[in-house]
Amino acid sequence: MARRKKRPAVTGGPNPYPARLSHPFAPQSLFSDDAIAAIHEMALKVLEELGMKILLEEAVELYRSAGASVDGDMVRIGRDIVKSALKTAPTEIQIFAPGPARNQLLKHGAMLFGPGAGCPNATDLIEGRRPGRLVDYENALRLQQSVDVIHLLGPSAEPQDVPANTRHYAFLRAQLALCDKPIFVYARGREQVEESFEMLRLALGLTDQTFGNQVWAKTVINTNSPRQIDRPMGQGIIDFARAGQLSIITPFCLAGAMAPITVSGALVLQHAEALAGITLAQIARPGAPVVYGAFGSNVDMKSGAPAFGTPEHIQMTLGSGQLARHIGLPWRSAAGSASNTTDAQAAGETHMSMWAALLGGATMTFHAAGWLEGGLTFGFEKFVNDIEMLQTFAHLTNIPKTDQESLGWSALADVEPGGHFFATEHTMERYRDAFYTPLVADISNFGSWTDAGSKTADQRATGIWQSMLREFTPPKGATERAGRIEEFIAKGEASGGAAILD
Amino acid sequence: MARRKKRPAVTGGPNPYPARLSHPFAPQSLFSDDAIAAIHEMALKVLEELGMKILLEEAVELYRSAGASVDGDMVRIGRDIVKSALKTAPTEIQIFAPGPARNQLLKHGAMLFGPGAGCPNATDLIEGRRPGRLVDYENALRLQQSVDVIHLLGPSAEPQDVPANTRHYAFLRAQLALCDKPIFVYARGREQVEESFEMLRLALGLTDQTFGNQVWAKTVINTNSPRQIDRPMGQGIIDFARAGQLSIITPFCLAGAMAPITVSGALVLQHAEALAGITLAQIARPGAPVVYGAFGSNVDMKSGAPAFGTPEHIQMTLGSGQLARHIGLPWRSAAGSASNTTDAQAAGETHMSMWAALLGGATMTFHAAGWLEGGLTFGFEKFVNDIEMLQTFAHLTNIPKTDQESLGWSALADVEPGGHFFATEHTMERYRDAFYTPLVADISNFGSWTDAGSKTADQRATGIWQSMLREFTPPKGATERAGRIEEFIAKGEASGGAAILD
Repeated sequence: MARRKKRPAVTGGPNPYPARLSHPFAPQSLFSDDAIAAIHEMALKVLEELGMKILLEEAVELYRSAGASVDGDMVRIGRDIVKSALKTAPTEIQIFAPGPARNQLLKHGAMLFGPGAGCPNATDLIEGRRPGRLVDYENALRLQQSVDVIHLLGPSAEPQDVPANTRHYAFLRAQLALCDKPIFVYARGREQVEESFEMLRLALGLTDQTFGNQVWAKTVINTNSPRQIDRPMGQGIIDFARAGQLSIITPFCLAGAMAPITVSGALVLQHAEALAGITLAQIARPGAPVVYGAFGSNVDMKSGAPAFGTPEHIQMTLGSGQLARHIGLPWRSAAGSASNTTDAQAAGETHMSMWAALLGGATMTFHAAGWLEGGLTFGFEKFVNDIEMLQTFAHLTNIPKTDQESLGWSALADVEPGGHFFATEHTMERYRDAFYTPLVADISNFGSWTDAGSKTADQRATGIWQSMLREFTPPKGATERAGRIEEFIAKGEASGGAAILD
Repeated sequence: MARRKKRPAVTGGPNPYPARLSHPFAPQSLFSDDAIAAIHEMALKVLEELGMKILLEEAVELYRSAGASVDGDMVRIGRDIVKSALKTAPTEIQIFAPGPARNQLLKHGAMLFGPGAGCPNATDLIEGRRPGRLVDYENALRLQQSVDVIHLLGPSAEPQDVPANTRHYAFLRAQLALCDKPIFVYARGREQVEESFEMLRLALGLTDQTFGNQVWAKTVINTNSPRQIDRPMGQGIIDFARAGQLSIITPFCLAGAMAPITVSGALVLQHAEALAGITLAQIARPGAPVVYGAFGSNVDMKSGAPAFGTPEHIQMTLGSGQLARHIGLPWRSAAGSASNTTDAQAAGETHMSMWAALLGGATMTFHAAGWLEGGLTFGFEKFVNDIEMLQTFAHLTNIPKTDQESLGWSALADVEPGGHFFATEHTMERYRDAFYTPLVADISNFGSWTDAGSKTADQRATGIWQSMLREFTPPKGATERAGRIEEFIAKGEASGGAAILD
């Protein structure tokens, strides 16, 4: 056709899919309702009879205050305590973002995506693989901000070139200066968390009271499977709950290694640990915003290496969705890839696990873009390729029209047998935005593709993230928001920052 | 773990999934029942008022005999004629294979996979891309036979080095000599089809009567969208129907090019054309085995190039599934990739379209392994990578156990908080076959992967297909079956073969 169609909005332009997505498919069940009830029951039995090892004394005391049986750091949590917690945990959570258009509502049926996160390394085809640096963290944020299909900011690459005690300043400054999407705060000890909350209040001009009643910060709490919550995680649950901020309580249960080798057994452990964390949050502050997190897969039993996108990963994800619906809470899932590079394996694993999250009805799915090596590396080319996948999912939320005009009688009557529809009025009226325009997929023929250098999808992705970075401008108000915490940060840095908790 | 686990059966060894697969998910609906009824109605109106151009006079006469209105080669087919055809078309079809263990039952809920097919070219990382040769066709058959997750043989690469008039001999000889799975026969004119049927009867020792009452050959009938059936396709429908063999009637409707630009409009055309073909088969022989075929996607409106794995491809697939259920017939779908090489794009597109076929509940999905460049090339490395995907789907049909032992209380009680499950009795009893073993995925860590040459999934796949070919032995009885047609072929070749129909 004559006129060139613009690429879809990856830098904030007009958007062909809604800013808030709903699931296009009904949640699928892998297990019978009875089997899910049995998993839930055994998880309660695990908490009641085997108990959790809780390394933070303050958390132990909270469990004790709610009636748990305590033996040193072993805490046995009766089912009534869990039941009470599940009664006060909210089923819908409004998440606030610096840019109001980026606010999101967590509830069953909502579909939110977060980037690959928590990676110690970063990689791209220009500089290769390296320990994460501040510039990588910032560039990954720029990409997250640039694509509308990433709804929640995540710490994609760890800025290891920033000292641990002042890293929380760098995290907040960069998110505020470059983005307007919901903010992530690491739970690395009370001092850093409280300073992060204070920075948020300053930057966003929020009173203590407003902040306490609205979710402006989210964190991920990983239990130390099996059956253990360490000090920073315990403190994080308590501090986020008391501040009214969001804990996404996510056991990372690898069947065969840190969890039983059976899918159902691994789900029992995962469920028990998630319930333990949710319960602590609700004891600390009834009604505290929490998300039921679940990220389970299997390991290779020869090497112990984590595998992703496997049948077992898919099955654990589907089972997790059923358990989330069983207890009625919003559910965080995760995609994943074990691949070391952005190849067919990487795409296959991530598609498999993302489809599982979709079929399971995950409220939020993390590691949805850019995750390589089982989370050890954030890949810039992987990010771009995964965005193609997420944009495809986002477009599925638009159901094609079936009114009489869309059914196309006029076009069908216009075109002779064996002809083509390119020039019909029906086509001409619609061709500009009829179809999804690929971000990185190259569908030109073999000759053209060869002439253009036979570039694979990862090689083509390099130019795309580079162009996103080149074209990046911070969203409205971001510079001002970040500016409001510079003084706080300067003081903090001058006094050595804030300790992290081991 | 100490003992090495064997790779899963790719050469006929013990099989961790059933030989006959059922869908793991409930079929999903994209459109409302009313919308599907509206598409069906408009398709009937297309057949009734606009009609189909039928290039074979014999087919025109058959339509006329059933009451259709004929004007030259334009045939208008009343809805009563279509309705009668849908009454006699079988809803379940038993497919027979040379190896009885390979027989398959086509019905809703069954899940069968066929390879990438109909490709003029072949490619691999050793020899590169070339016009298909007999050796490529044969090697692709060896691979199809070697992996249990391919249920139906397909003409992966066209043997262009065999003259067209004797190519049907090469097709039959190779399938019979190398495989025991259900046979594919091209509909390239009556002479070749009849000779192919005769070769099948000879090879398999079937009487005319047995052959006529059992499905031993299948073909794919592509309409010439829009609204046209050419001479070989028309003759194929008639000949396969009269011989009691299977026609898979598959319009290939690319929205925006040979079909209306709207998803629903393209579905109207696709549905009308499939119904026209099904109707012709039922007129030729009421009760003839037919499959409702549907392969629809969109083109890029800038270049006209076909796109696959797009939101529109997924939507057309889901809608096709609904239409198939609406008329109650077994349904053939298709995966697809436009990528020129086995990269992240190729994997992404094929996963997207395969998941759509899964969610739509496709009875048989073709082009499920090895399809590149929108079908212009069969890729050996692509085939291996796609088999990983299909094996993952196959494993999903095994629902994890949830009996008390599987729920893993003994393991959970065995392992201390923060410990691991590697050495528990629960693990030791199960680790050998607990998880799917990858075929091509490399989940080793970055260091090991780099030490092993940083090979991408396509590069690793080369060794895998080479090893499959090296280890290949024809199935029991295959050599004898092929031997029984050598004399027939020698005679045929001596007399110049059989004409193909233009």
